[in-house]
Amino acid sequence: MATEEPTESLADAGEFTVIDRLIRGRRQPGGVEVGPGDDAAVLAAAEDARTVVTTDMLVAGRHFRLDWSTPHQVGRKAIAQNGADIAAMGARPTAFVVAFGAPPDTPTAHALELTDGMWQEASRIGAGIVGGDLVSAPQWVIGVTALGSLDGRAPVLRSGARSGDIVAVAGELGRSMAGYQLWRNGIEGFDELRRRHLVPQPPYRQGPIAAEAGATAMTDVSDGLLADLGHIADASGVVIDLSTARLAADHDAVAGAAAAVDADPWAWVLGGGEDHALVATFGSAPPPGWRTIGRVLDGTPAVLVDGAAWRGNPGWDSFG
Amino acid sequence: MATEEPTESLADAGEFTVIDRLIRGRRQPGGVEVGPGDDAAVLAAAEDARTVVTTDMLVAGRHFRLDWSTPHQVGRKAIAQNGADIAAMGARPTAFVVAFGAPPDTPTAHALELTDGMWQEASRIGAGIVGGDLVSAPQWVIGVTALGSLDGRAPVLRSGARSGDIVAVAGELGRSMAGYQLWRNGIEGFDELRRRHLVPQPPYRQGPIAAEAGATAMTDVSDGLLADLGHIADASGVVIDLSTARLAADHDAVAGAAAAVDADPWAWVLGGGEDHALVATFGSAPPPGWRTIGRVLDGTPAVLVDGAAWRGNPGWDSFG
Repeated sequence: MATEEPTESLADAGEFTVIDRLIRGRRQPGGVEVGPGDDAAVLAAAEDARTVVTTDMLVAGRHFRLDWSTPHQVGRKAIAQNGADIAAMGARPTAFVVAFGAPPDTPTAHALELTDGMWQEASRIGAGIVGGDLVSAPQWVIGVTALGSLDGRAPVLRSGARSGDIVAVAGELGRSMAGYQLWRNGIEGFDELRRRHLVPQPPYRQGPIAAEAGATAMTDVSDGLLADLGHIADASGVVIDLSTARLAADHDAVAGAAAAVDADPWAWVLGGGEDHALVATFGSAPPPGWRTIGRVLDGTPAVLVDGAAWRGNPGWDSFG
Repeated sequence: MATEEPTESLADAGEFTVIDRLIRGRRQPGGVEVGPGDDAAVLAAAEDARTVVTTDMLVAGRHFRLDWSTPHQVGRKAIAQNGADIAAMGARPTAFVVAFGAPPDTPTAHALELTDGMWQEASRIGAGIVGGDLVSAPQWVIGVTALGSLDGRAPVLRSGARSGDIVAVAGELGRSMAGYQLWRNGIEGFDELRRRHLVPQPPYRQGPIAAEAGATAMTDVSDGLLADLGHIADASGVVIDLSTARLAADHDAVAGAAAAVDADPWAWVLGGGEDHALVATFGSAPPPGWRTIGRVLDGTPAVLVDGAAWRGNPGWDSFG
């Protein structure tokens, strides 16, 4: 970045020059027959030729704030939340395509930092950015599509939970919401929590591990634990009963921050989304890396907390 | 749509209710193991297990106008331009995922019409919408990712044109720009041209046909014939020389509209994009459905018109 004028904008450079810079020098992982720069990318046949695919859109001011996040952090988050959806099927992310809309006066350097962040997170998973689009938009908007491979496993759906199953989680709960409330209230300190809101750390590898271990249902916590388990309860036709005793570690991890903004830490653990933890049900003991947090019961689909309905905020609605 | 209140908004209905309505009753084509409603979709293994993938973003006010287009037309266009990119590789579109951002006060009925339009265009190609995302955004923004299959063929890149090749086109040129200028100048009549701007009609099937016929390079006309052939000239290291005599039919089709807005019809045929015609180079006579419009020569990469540089607008820049 030392070679370019820091104030050069996307409009100054022009679409094709910017695209050229964004894709130059990136090292694609194996399996990319045709990378960025043509009409479409071509991915080589995997051993398991089924394709897992998911897409998410992130809008500035709604899903990230450029006064809180660096462009690099936004890029990591955009890849992370799509990678988590692939992992939640029991699959391994293999490739991403990204569309980026931004105002013409956006510094070219910021587009490069965003792309660097995307590549960093994709590389952590062993995947690459194989294609993209760059357009003018009134505010930053990022569309990411992730592709994945099941490597011969059956996909783990939301509909397979059965009475008697154990509910378990891999990854963190409540941290992203804690960070969000800290940022929103302008509270310093709690650096790790504030960072977690900007860059979630999904336990990608635990998706395939859970599938191998026979997970009966799985999803990632994007809207909040209760809301996302509600999707499993509905799709599976079961009751899920969570134990607060089993969630004490998450509660304790955010309790100090909750006190600082006078919030209920349980609302964050049970209702806060965007950590992209994985939550799954198992017919037997969950594998290492998973913590038991509840059990599956018969009954009219619902998610209970210690046997009763939770009275706090159940989660995130995009239009709420 | 008769059963719902026409004024109900996305915020009134809520994210999950809207998503449920958008995906309910859609008939997925064969090969979709898991459709919308889980964390990700799963596509069955195709005979040719390579995956072709491309993504585009459309922003209201930039790529479409809701005072010109119906939501149904916007949906068709969003699918068409991505499907054309797949066809331009010599591939067949098999599946789409879509992300839709819109203000909370958007009528739910408009989101349904958009989705209906997407499904109509996808169904024409034999593909389905296998997944998506619905988010809040200050204006409509649509992210589409298309997946495709090469059915055993080699991909047709932009880099394979060789001196002596014939340049040929399948589909229409200049119509979308003609329609755009008619809309912009508020001129009635020329209904077909104005419709073409709102809903391009890419010759999807000609992509695989060209590949079978041995096309050496191919792209779709999204930025303008000269600009898109410029990409082939650069990637292949060749000169492309177009013949206006061979493009007379396109010129004549838009000449009336050009006269009505006092424009040069050649600027529309050579510089107007978004028709998503396919343009390719062939080592021998092009197959039926393709019209010869020029030839490939040795030299410093350039696109010429009747042997000379064109002095008009060369095409579209996203930040221009």
